[in-house]
Amino acid sequence: MDGRRVRDERTITERLRKMALPPAGSPVVAGIGDDCAIYRPRGSADDLLFTTDLFVEGTHFLRETHQAADVARKALARSISDIAAMGGTPRFCLVSLCAAKWTTPRWLDRFFDTLVAGASAWGAVLAGGDLSHGEIFACDVTVCGAVPRGKALRRGGARRGHEIYVSGALGGSALGLESGKGKAWQRHLHPEPRVALGVFLREKLRATAAIDVSDGLSLDLERLCLESGAGAEIGEPPRFRGASLEQALHGGEEYELLFTVRAGTPVPAAFQGIPLTRIGTIINSPAGEIRHHGVPLPVKGYDHFRNR
Amino acid sequence: MDGRRVRDERTITERLRKMALPPAGSPVVAGIGDDCAIYRPRGSADDLLFTTDLFVEGTHFLRETHQAADVARKALARSISDIAAMGGTPRFCLVSLCAAKWTTPRWLDRFFDTLVAGASAWGAVLAGGDLSHGEIFACDVTVCGAVPRGKALRRGGARRGHEIYVSGALGGSALGLESGKGKAWQRHLHPEPRVALGVFLREKLRATAAIDVSDGLSLDLERLCLESGAGAEIGEPPRFRGASLEQALHGGEEYELLFTVRAGTPVPAAFQGIPLTRIGTIINSPAGEIRHHGVPLPVKGYDHFRNR
Repeated sequence: MDGRRVRDERTITERLRKMALPPAGSPVVAGIGDDCAIYRPRGSADDLLFTTDLFVEGTHFLRETHQAADVARKALARSISDIAAMGGTPRFCLVSLCAAKWTTPRWLDRFFDTLVAGASAWGAVLAGGDLSHGEIFACDVTVCGAVPRGKALRRGGARRGHEIYVSGALGGSALGLESGKGKAWQRHLHPEPRVALGVFLREKLRATAAIDVSDGLSLDLERLCLESGAGAEIGEPPRFRGASLEQALHGGEEYELLFTVRAGTPVPAAFQGIPLTRIGTIINSPAGEIRHHGVPLPVKGYDHFRNR
Repeated sequence: MDGRRVRDERTITERLRKMALPPAGSPVVAGIGDDCAIYRPRGSADDLLFTTDLFVEGTHFLRETHQAADVARKALARSISDIAAMGGTPRFCLVSLCAAKWTTPRWLDRFFDTLVAGASAWGAVLAGGDLSHGEIFACDVTVCGAVPRGKALRRGGARRGHEIYVSGALGGSALGLESGKGKAWQRHLHPEPRVALGVFLREKLRATAAIDVSDGLSLDLERLCLESGAGAEIGEPPRFRGASLEQALHGGEEYELLFTVRAGTPVPAAFQGIPLTRIGTIINSPAGEIRHHGVPLPVKGYDHFRNR
C-alpha cells in the first residue's frame, strides 16, 4: 500500500498469502506459498494439486522465434513441472487463451493440437478453458494433479543435515536464450517436466522437500529454505555443456527438480537416465540464506516485478 | 485446418471438444461443452466443478472507465457465475495476472484486496496463481466449486415440454455499456452471480438444465438447446428498465440464470427478491433453433472470433 512503483514478486506474494490464509478446517490444505495449492475433496483418498502459469507474448516468448507448437509445449510444461515438484500425477488442464490479431486459425489449430497431445502424453485431459482476444497473445494453463492424501512433496520439510540434490544439468536454458542455437536452444525451447522423477522422490526416496527450478537455482533454493526455516550450503551445481557457473546458479526455466532427503538416503546416481547430483546440505543459518563454497550467494533469479 | 482467418468460437470449441474427449472411466466426467468441467475425485461424495475466465484490457474493460476494484469484481463474478449455473458452491480460486506498465503497486493492492474479499464473500479462498507482466493488463480467474456427486446442473437435460425460465431482468448490461451511466452502468460494472439461486434450482426445483447468460439470451439459449438436442419457443423476456427488446434478447454480461424445469413445477415468482420469469417452452425442432413469437430468432450474442 505504499505507492512505490517497483515491488518484487515476493512482497506481493507474501502480502497475498497473509490475506488469503485458508481458515481452519478448510478443504484448501495449502494455499499460496508452494508449487501448487492442495485441495482435499470430501471423503477422497487423493489430494488434488492445482497450479496455473501464464505465458505471455513479448515476455515469455517472441513470435519470431517460437512456433505455435513451441508455445503450446512450453506453456504446458511449466504447469506440469509444478505438479511434478509435488510428486503428483497430472489429471486435467484448463487453457485460457487470448488471441492476437496475428494468430491465424492455422496457428491456433497447431497450438491446440500440440497442447492436447502434450497433455495426453502426461496423462491429462484438456477439460475446458476460455477463448478471448486482445492486443497480444497470452495463454494461462491450469493443471490439476493427484497425489495420495497427505503425501504431496512440500517446500517446507527440509531440516538441518538433509542433503540437497538436483536433477539434470543446469544453465542450458539460459545459455540457449543467449546463444539462440544448438542443444542449449532446444533445451530452452523444450523443457521436459520431471513427472516420473517426482513420483519416485515421493514414493521411493521419501524426499523431505522439493521445488522445481523455474526461476533459477539460487532463487528456488532460497524459496525452499525460506519455507523450511533453514539455510543451505552448496558447492558446484552440475552444468549443462557450455553453460557458465553464473548460468547454472541463476538461470531460470530449467524445470529440473531440486529436492532434499534425510542424510544417508541411498539416492541413485541417475533416474531413467537423468543424473541426480548432490549439491549441498541444509544448515542452521538465517532462513533463506544460501552459501556457495562458504560465501553468501546473492539471489539473482528472475522476478517479473523487479526485472522489467 | 483450413487457413481461413475468421472462425467463430463454436467452431474452435467443437473441434477441441472432439479432440479432447475424456476417455471412458476418466475422472473427468464432463470436459469441454458446459459452463464448467466436472471432476470426480476418487472416493469423494462431491463432484468438483472447474471454470476459467480471461479478463483482458481493451477487450473486457478500459482502464479509463474501470477502477482496480471494478476489474477484480467483474473478473471474479464471471467465473463464480459459471459455478452458479451448475448449482455449485465456490470453494477456491486461482488468479493469473499479467501486469501492464501502468499498473502501480497501489492499483495491484486494490485489485487483490477486492478479489480476496469478493472470493471470501462467495465462500472461496484465493489458493494460488501466477504473476507476470506484459504490454497489456490481463487476468485469468479459475474457480473450483463443489456439488454433491452426480448432481451438477447441466446444459443438456432440457426435453420437449420443459418450461424455460430466466432470473432477473435482461438488457441492463448492454444498455449500461451504451449509455455509460445510471443504474444500467452499475449493472454492467457490478454483475451479481446467482450462487444461492443455482443451489435452489438444483436442490428444490430440480431444474433439468441451466446456463448463465454471459453472451446474450439468444446465444446462451441456443447453447442450452444444442446440448439438449431440442429447440425453444420464447416470448418476451423480462427487460431491465430502459433496455430495448434487442438488448434483452442479445445483450451479454447479464450473469442471470437461464433454466428449464419439468412442466408443472411450482416455480416461485421470485427467489430472494430476484424475479423468476417464464419466457417459453422447449419444443421438438432442429437442435438449437430458437423461435421468438413463432419466428426464427437470429442468434446475435457476442463471439470473440466473429465480432472483432
